[in-house]
Amino acid sequence: MTRNLPVKTDRIAADIDALAAITEPDRPWTRRAFTPMFLKGRAYLERRFKEAGLATRIDAAGNLIGFRKGAGSKGTIMLGSHSDTVPNGGRFDGIAGVVAALEVARSLDEAGIALEHDLEIADFLAEEVSIFGVSCIGSRGMLGLRPAEWLERETDGMSLAEGIRMVGGDPAIGGGRGDIKTFLELHIEQGPVLEKERIDIGVVTAIAGITRIEIVVEGRADHAGTTPMGARRDALTAASRVVLGIERIASELAQGPSHFAATVGEFSMEPNAANVVPSHVRMLIDARAEDPAVMESFSEAVSALTEQTAKRSGVTITPPRRISNNPATPMAASVVALLEKSATGLDAPSRRMVSGAGHDAAFLAKVVPAAMIFIACRDGRSHAPEEWADNDDIALGAAVLYETVLKLDRQ
Amino acid sequence: MTRNLPVKTDRIAADIDALAAITEPDRPWTRRAFTPMFLKGRAYLERRFKEAGLATRIDAAGNLIGFRKGAGSKGTIMLGSHSDTVPNGGRFDGIAGVVAALEVARSLDEAGIALEHDLEIADFLAEEVSIFGVSCIGSRGMLGLRPAEWLERETDGMSLAEGIRMVGGDPAIGGGRGDIKTFLELHIEQGPVLEKERIDIGVVTAIAGITRIEIVVEGRADHAGTTPMGARRDALTAASRVVLGIERIASELAQGPSHFAATVGEFSMEPNAANVVPSHVRMLIDARAEDPAVMESFSEAVSALTEQTAKRSGVTITPPRRISNNPATPMAASVVALLEKSATGLDAPSRRMVSGAGHDAAFLAKVVPAAMIFIACRDGRSHAPEEWADNDDIALGAAVLYETVLKLDRQ
Repeated sequence: MTRNLPVKTDRIAADIDALAAITEPDRPWTRRAFTPMFLKGRAYLERRFKEAGLATRIDAAGNLIGFRKGAGSKGTIMLGSHSDTVPNGGRFDGIAGVVAALEVARSLDEAGIALEHDLEIADFLAEEVSIFGVSCIGSRGMLGLRPAEWLERETDGMSLAEGIRMVGGDPAIGGGRGDIKTFLELHIEQGPVLEKERIDIGVVTAIAGITRIEIVVEGRADHAGTTPMGARRDALTAASRVVLGIERIASELAQGPSHFAATVGEFSMEPNAANVVPSHVRMLIDARAEDPAVMESFSEAVSALTEQTAKRSGVTITPPRRISNNPATPMAASVVALLEKSATGLDAPSRRMVSGAGHDAAFLAKVVPAAMIFIACRDGRSHAPEEWADNDDIALGAAVLYETVLKLDRQ
Repeated sequence: MTRNLPVKTDRIAADIDALAAITEPDRPWTRRAFTPMFLKGRAYLERRFKEAGLATRIDAAGNLIGFRKGAGSKGTIMLGSHSDTVPNGGRFDGIAGVVAALEVARSLDEAGIALEHDLEIADFLAEEVSIFGVSCIGSRGMLGLRPAEWLERETDGMSLAEGIRMVGGDPAIGGGRGDIKTFLELHIEQGPVLEKERIDIGVVTAIAGITRIEIVVEGRADHAGTTPMGARRDALTAASRVVLGIERIASELAQGPSHFAATVGEFSMEPNAANVVPSHVRMLIDARAEDPAVMESFSEAVSALTEQTAKRSGVTITPPRRISNNPATPMAASVVALLEKSATGLDAPSRRMVSGAGHDAAFLAKVVPAAMIFIACRDGRSHAPEEWADNDDIALGAAVLYETVLKLDRQ
């Protein structure tokens, strides 16, 4: 569908292409935070911010900010995402959100619109798990949510504090952004739903909670040749029952009204010798839930599953242990409603959805009214070179942000 | 039951205890072939062989041989097993067979019995997987079945050829034992059957064939948080179905008249990251069959299983690949019958069974009439410090060998 949008697809395409060219050449697309390649990407963005008439600065948390002064003194509307990538990542994850935010600022200028609010375009530092092993460093830092001990993390002889100074920030300062009235982020979905349902805009209602649960199965290492099938305590066959039980429980919970997914992402076995019955399996479940009650149901069902499996298989299974537990973050209902209204105004089909992945918006939402939109990505692929999104879809998303900024400004 | 046996339990107990004391002190029981501790064990055995009136030598293959001259020239009856252990192994695996064989020689002397045949007691070199990564080096070497290229295998700067010279052998010479008329070996069962069924003697009818089959499952690495349960190609859940299918197929085949067992002993997964849907699993099946037709049935059922699982789970599974295939070795029927007759003559309940594990007897049986007996071991444990057998059971087994030697000599 060709729409008459308040934003320009070709400018978005040019920025996406230009940033894609700034990659480690032997493993596209790689522009990890705190590396020289990342700083080259930042230099490109800073130049483009300036060309759009924005005043640029690096804030204390290491975020690149483009500032557009408002006519009134109603505070700041902030748009943004991140320009760093995972190793061998894609061209759109984060980048699409920064470029769309920049295009909103350019289009406002082009239309001669003066906002009452200040407008800020943010490229948050190190949203992806960085070389320091932690993520969302810039958005946490801006809001005073960055754990103090992180600054001492070291990699290749550099501390995170030094890394923040290297990109132009000041690790001694944190928080102090009481001026932000609303935050909006555009991101690729990183899942297959929008593409499959042919829906343009996913309006994110919450960022799912993440709980990690460890399960250890203890069987008995017996001779694989001499131990009859019925006399074994095989940790692998018991663990396989647990894996399939988790898949069944998760699939049932995913049928419910709220978002749920669970994955056994880590799985290792001992002694892992061809002629020995496996004696030990450790697995780690990654569970994502919009509704904390559903996470509790999952946790209880997994406990029952491991008890039954242990009894049935003659093995010992340690009670499932939560090694981390981050609750879901709801998006601001009023902002969600405005985003939906903007999509409708642009004749863009939208649906509400929950983000299974973490985003900078999750940290913004802890402090200020915040919301996100998703646009489709091809085949749901992300964090991989195959990652793809159409510039027309990014432009439509940028238009939704544009219209929402206008609505927010009038409130 | 107290029986009036032609052998002495206390002498067996003394030898078992003396060899148990010859171990690496910090990881009992360890006496690996080609190590100084192994040579200490050999020195003890050589002394005991001499005390029993046997002429001792190290043959070209590196086996310790105790020789008892026969009155006639009917060839050699050989008894034996091995004194080397796996790391952190047990006190009985192999050792019980060497000590029982020695006790037969001592008891024949004590009874003043002159055999028509020469009698040889053998401690075979490196029955267990050795520091050179291969097993049954001495029994293969004695019969000319040791692959020539093995001699070049190196570990810690020593070649296998040098290792054989170190223990007193000559790697340039192989085979040439046309004099052996029959070989007998006593071994612990390394499984739970005899203990469970309260049967004294397992008469081994065959040593199972071993086939190793590799299966590779290829799914797709997707984001664990954003990929709906129904849109995944999870290599781990598919592999879990394969593991349970293998267990089911093997359990059914194990109900049949011939010995069968199968184990997934190796299993590894990629990328093995908490927040990524598993994309790759490699597993290795160890299958043991007495009957080659049953091995074929298993192999066909596994192929069908992987095809069905791939279809059902949306993953790709490579056709199961046989990476090794050693057929079963039958024991000599005439010798099996004599062993059974001897057990009956001693009022010792016996049953026929198949060895799921490999033994020196498997290589002897390729060239000469050979057979084995098993005695019970506690809880089926082996290759572990918990390994245990009762000296009374070893003595009863030694008595079965003694009576069988007399029967063979009279033939």
